[in-house]
Amino acid sequence: MRIGVIGSGALGLYYGALLQRAGHALHFLLRRDFEAISRSGLSVTSPQGDFHLADVQGYKNSSEIGPVDLVLVGLKAYANEHLVELTRPLVAAETTILTLQNGLGNEDLLAGAFGDDSIVGGVAFLCCNRGEPGSVHHLDQGFIRIAEFGKGLSTRVEQLAETFNQAGIPCEACSDLTRVRWEKLVWNIPFNGLCALTDRPTDRLLNCPKTRQLIMEMMQEVVAAANCQGLSELIEGPDFIEQLLHVTVGMGAYCPSMMIDRQQGSPLELAAIYGIPLKRAAEANAAMTRVAMLHALLEATE
Amino acid sequence: MRIGVIGSGALGLYYGALLQRAGHALHFLLRRDFEAISRSGLSVTSPQGDFHLADVQGYKNSSEIGPVDLVLVGLKAYANEHLVELTRPLVAAETTILTLQNGLGNEDLLAGAFGDDSIVGGVAFLCCNRGEPGSVHHLDQGFIRIAEFGKGLSTRVEQLAETFNQAGIPCEACSDLTRVRWEKLVWNIPFNGLCALTDRPTDRLLNCPKTRQLIMEMMQEVVAAANCQGLSELIEGPDFIEQLLHVTVGMGAYCPSMMIDRQQGSPLELAAIYGIPLKRAAEANAAMTRVAMLHALLEATE
Repeated sequence: MRIGVIGSGALGLYYGALLQRAGHALHFLLRRDFEAISRSGLSVTSPQGDFHLADVQGYKNSSEIGPVDLVLVGLKAYANEHLVELTRPLVAAETTILTLQNGLGNEDLLAGAFGDDSIVGGVAFLCCNRGEPGSVHHLDQGFIRIAEFGKGLSTRVEQLAETFNQAGIPCEACSDLTRVRWEKLVWNIPFNGLCALTDRPTDRLLNCPKTRQLIMEMMQEVVAAANCQGLSELIEGPDFIEQLLHVTVGMGAYCPSMMIDRQQGSPLELAAIYGIPLKRAAEANAAMTRVAMLHALLEATE
Repeated sequence: MRIGVIGSGALGLYYGALLQRAGHALHFLLRRDFEAISRSGLSVTSPQGDFHLADVQGYKNSSEIGPVDLVLVGLKAYANEHLVELTRPLVAAETTILTLQNGLGNEDLLAGAFGDDSIVGGVAFLCCNRGEPGSVHHLDQGFIRIAEFGKGLSTRVEQLAETFNQAGIPCEACSDLTRVRWEKLVWNIPFNGLCALTDRPTDRLLNCPKTRQLIMEMMQEVVAAANCQGLSELIEGPDFIEQLLHVTVGMGAYCPSMMIDRQQGSPLELAAIYGIPLKRAAEANAAMTRVAMLHALLEATE
């Protein structure tokens, strides 16, 4: 498969490297890592085994890549104003565009430019950091859930999931993208913003009884809003929340991406993780009071 | 009048200085400023005229002060575990104890040790900072509202208000301490905590539409909780909130005391301004959702 990666951060580099190792023809749009990868290839460290790809096709301009079978989008959502122009040169009639970006609004943006039928969305449960240019550090997990945009399960997403699984990327084909996206938001909305705002990793907030309570209340708000979005099957709040907290405790002193963005002085993915979900919740008359407050505090401190 | 000042921060020093200048016998319990004031007296800068008191009675130990007619309490509420022991040597049968500390719980603490009848509470609208040891800078305002603890208007508070007014301290005797305290909380609860949490002065938060909205919503929560506290007269929310916002805009880039406490690495007055008001609100079934969230975030970042 000919695969283009738009947004070669930790996620794009890691999944791209696994797909190339499995024999696919990868084409990475690079910025920070262009020189290092062109010179010395791409190194992956991982608890599942380190590996190095000596020959990696990197590009500074996506028009040099040309049409591909699959576009893998890992761009930070705060850079979405450039997403369509970056993606366009890679798209032909049969191209599938898979966005694994955070939050809501990414598929809609791509569908507006390339048509609903091109778009597959997904969420990644991945603990991964960029290292020195040309290297990426996989820390934990890596599971992906993908689904068609605007329709149910398809042969295409099942085949795509199979492709990922064969490359060593655990992947599940799902039938309801809205549910997949909102389930991820139940974690992202409290932890990304609270950790960024307080500059405390997940364990610090879970160990303080008041913030642990707050996290649970925010999760309840997100579940309630999610369950007003016309899901094929409702999210079972208490069980799901308990499970998320259990998993998060196991992650130890984890620093969510938004916390790292703030520490690095980067913009935050506020529209994708807060603004658009709050708008969708309000349209469904499911006010998320605490989420709106967190959004206000994050915006005020940008 | 023989007056003892417990908690000689900016508030205690400023009001004490005005009372001494008016002819009262002031006795200041000092810590940081003891050496400077013993050596060179106390300097006040103020838009109403600077002045210097050459001969100021300062003490390191309140037992050296002995009984007084009036104890003026300006101690930070986070030091309340020491309040009773610091105050006890100053209290005789006819002593009035006036606490101008922030938040709730201060009168109850003093009343538990010295009896309800000794206690008068009040709130100060004062912009004042400590300068170098031995100096205090009055910036703006200075108005005080005082009321009996646990009963209505009395001759005592009217006479006390008269004493303050004669000393150049604008002071109103009020009939309902609970109302006086909660009215002040309508300002203190949003601004103290939000400014401390975000490290932004009042104007920055009012200029950002989302935090301005949040401030108004928090004020509404506090007014609703206040109006469940058995007030003699309900607070008229919209008018009162509009008036507070108008006054705050006029204060410019004001840094509330809790923001300064955090910048200086001091503890925050969390129990007095958040913990106890939240408890009183919960007891009256008036949940303050956003206030509880702010409390949790402040506690997590202590």
